[in-house]
Amino acid sequence: MGEHRPPEHGGDWAGYRSAYGALPLDFSANLNPFGMPDAVRRAAASALAEPPRYPDPLCRALRAAIAAWEHVDENWCLCGAGAADLIYRAVLARRPRRALVTAPSFSEYEAALSLTDCAVERYVLRVEDGFLLREDFLDAIVPGTDMVFLCEPNNPTGRTTDRALLAAVLARCREAGALLVVDECFGEFLDDPASHTMKPFLDGSGHLLILKAFTKLWAMAGLRLGYCLCDDGAYLAAMGRAGPPWAVSAPAQAAGLAALTQTETGPAVRAFLAKERPWLAAQLTALRFHVVPGEANYLLFYAPRSLLEPLARRGILLRGCAGYHGLGEGWYRAAVRLHEENERLIGALREICWEEEE
Amino acid sequence: MGEHRPPEHGGDWAGYRSAYGALPLDFSANLNPFGMPDAVRRAAASALAEPPRYPDPLCRALRAAIAAWEHVDENWCLCGAGAADLIYRAVLARRPRRALVTAPSFSEYEAALSLTDCAVERYVLRVEDGFLLREDFLDAIVPGTDMVFLCEPNNPTGRTTDRALLAAVLARCREAGALLVVDECFGEFLDDPASHTMKPFLDGSGHLLILKAFTKLWAMAGLRLGYCLCDDGAYLAAMGRAGPPWAVSAPAQAAGLAALTQTETGPAVRAFLAKERPWLAAQLTALRFHVVPGEANYLLFYAPRSLLEPLARRGILLRGCAGYHGLGEGWYRAAVRLHEENERLIGALREICWEEEE
Repeated sequence: MGEHRPPEHGGDWAGYRSAYGALPLDFSANLNPFGMPDAVRRAAASALAEPPRYPDPLCRALRAAIAAWEHVDENWCLCGAGAADLIYRAVLARRPRRALVTAPSFSEYEAALSLTDCAVERYVLRVEDGFLLREDFLDAIVPGTDMVFLCEPNNPTGRTTDRALLAAVLARCREAGALLVVDECFGEFLDDPASHTMKPFLDGSGHLLILKAFTKLWAMAGLRLGYCLCDDGAYLAAMGRAGPPWAVSAPAQAAGLAALTQTETGPAVRAFLAKERPWLAAQLTALRFHVVPGEANYLLFYAPRSLLEPLARRGILLRGCAGYHGLGEGWYRAAVRLHEENERLIGALREICWEEEE
Repeated sequence: MGEHRPPEHGGDWAGYRSAYGALPLDFSANLNPFGMPDAVRRAAASALAEPPRYPDPLCRALRAAIAAWEHVDENWCLCGAGAADLIYRAVLARRPRRALVTAPSFSEYEAALSLTDCAVERYVLRVEDGFLLREDFLDAIVPGTDMVFLCEPNNPTGRTTDRALLAAVLARCREAGALLVVDECFGEFLDDPASHTMKPFLDGSGHLLILKAFTKLWAMAGLRLGYCLCDDGAYLAAMGRAGPPWAVSAPAQAAGLAALTQTETGPAVRAFLAKERPWLAAQLTALRFHVVPGEANYLLFYAPRSLLEPLARRGILLRGCAGYHGLGEGWYRAAVRLHEENERLIGALREICWEEEE
């Protein structure tokens, strides 16, 4: 069937449609449940009406807007076709010999590292610790470690690391000569993003790269736009060269500019999640599933039964997490969607549990 | 100013605007002068109205349509964010130790090769040969050569290689164990594309990769969409893994599907170019410039004077080719645009030549 890449991520509505003949209610991708703001959609559409031309390879206007939004120097900002693009560029620009990742975590760090001759060490996050990073992570960062990847909040667990420990990790990276990559793609869904972001540690000493995406908060997954912040401009320049020059399409650049004018999007979705996430967690717990206390717009849980196929037959796509290093069969991730949609998920899960008990 | 990448390609309208405060008449990018068909623009816009979701990472519908359009097996087709994306993936999936390119040619082959530990040999195309490939190119392909890049028609010269010689190059690549990459991104602008494409040589023996783009024929440069054809499905799968999984945005996939229904676009632009290209070449020759007999939608020429700045002051952006290996100061590339636009270019060039003579 020409499947060049197995559907190793959530959001594979097209694969679902091939199998079931309709679009699913998709809990497998973690996007802002309110969708793309109208102003963003209009801006992207208006870019299509511009004269035919290449996109600005340097994303000049967008980078200036991001720098103002993030209160960082424009030279510490680089745009890419989603955060995933920037992960590959970060790896290819550095060509690490030895890297450290956590497990479970987003699989694209290892996928990118596999393109270089890099030994990858996996630090295992344990279910009995609630998948939290422990102090002994510091011991895993040694001279010779080139790159360290942390996802904050972590995907798929939704957990965050105490900022004091993050600061210690960064200090250890500086000592060891390693680059710390902190993926904050889901950071805007935390109750208080400002208290967790590593941005205050961007100080010009050049060992910190922060990944951010428009994908999730602005529900712009289809358009491909992300950016990173790093206090080493020369490294960002090397990342710019570590892939095609026209990374970001014209509609994505226009959409990004418009998104940064929508200052209510973040507060609104955080207020919603503050109520809806606990509700969904309680419902899953009532079904006797083990729910990890995630802090973002998704929840990781364990259910001692097979859920994917029975949910799919009911029109619902869930993220199976058996493929994550550090997890296995029975682990699932569900996005926090709108309340009625979450009710549909819970209703379907109840049906499935009852069926099995009969 | 945070210029992470020098404007080493044509089409930098944004850089022009920064310097001159307005948009240029752009002869530096080689797009279909009739622009993006309306149906393509509408399709891309309608993709923006879809529910928020990731693009299909496997481009299932688009790949099926391309396979039908090209009359090749669907498993021999991979989509990317423009042909440039596929150049990087091709290199990263193969990690060649030794590669052969021509000079002058498109600079992204070498840019991609520079990401791996690869020795790059440049075969020099000579002005006295009209920049045509010579038979002795075969001698440069030896055991140990991993990848060979040819651009047909070549960018920036517009020249093509006799297909018999191309067939001999492919045979030599098979003997040497090399992959031949033939970039046919401008192939649809040749008078008779079918007589030049290397598609008939895709036979399952797995040493041929053909690059194609929607960028040029459909004037979709802003959207980023290209594809490649290769008779080695396992290699295409490795290319799929050699970069982020969501390479092609949702609007680009929708636009590509719509473009393949526009069967009149190719014939119409070829009929136009058959008249307009000779006219523009004659006008440039009348200005006593040396014009290379290009066969695509652009012309390379030599003028013994500085043209970029005086043209820019007149609102016109031309492609200076001094940065190409194998060329130097005085070489320029001009797109063949609509007749009135080409007249504006010639008028401005006449003014500049008169000024200097005064």
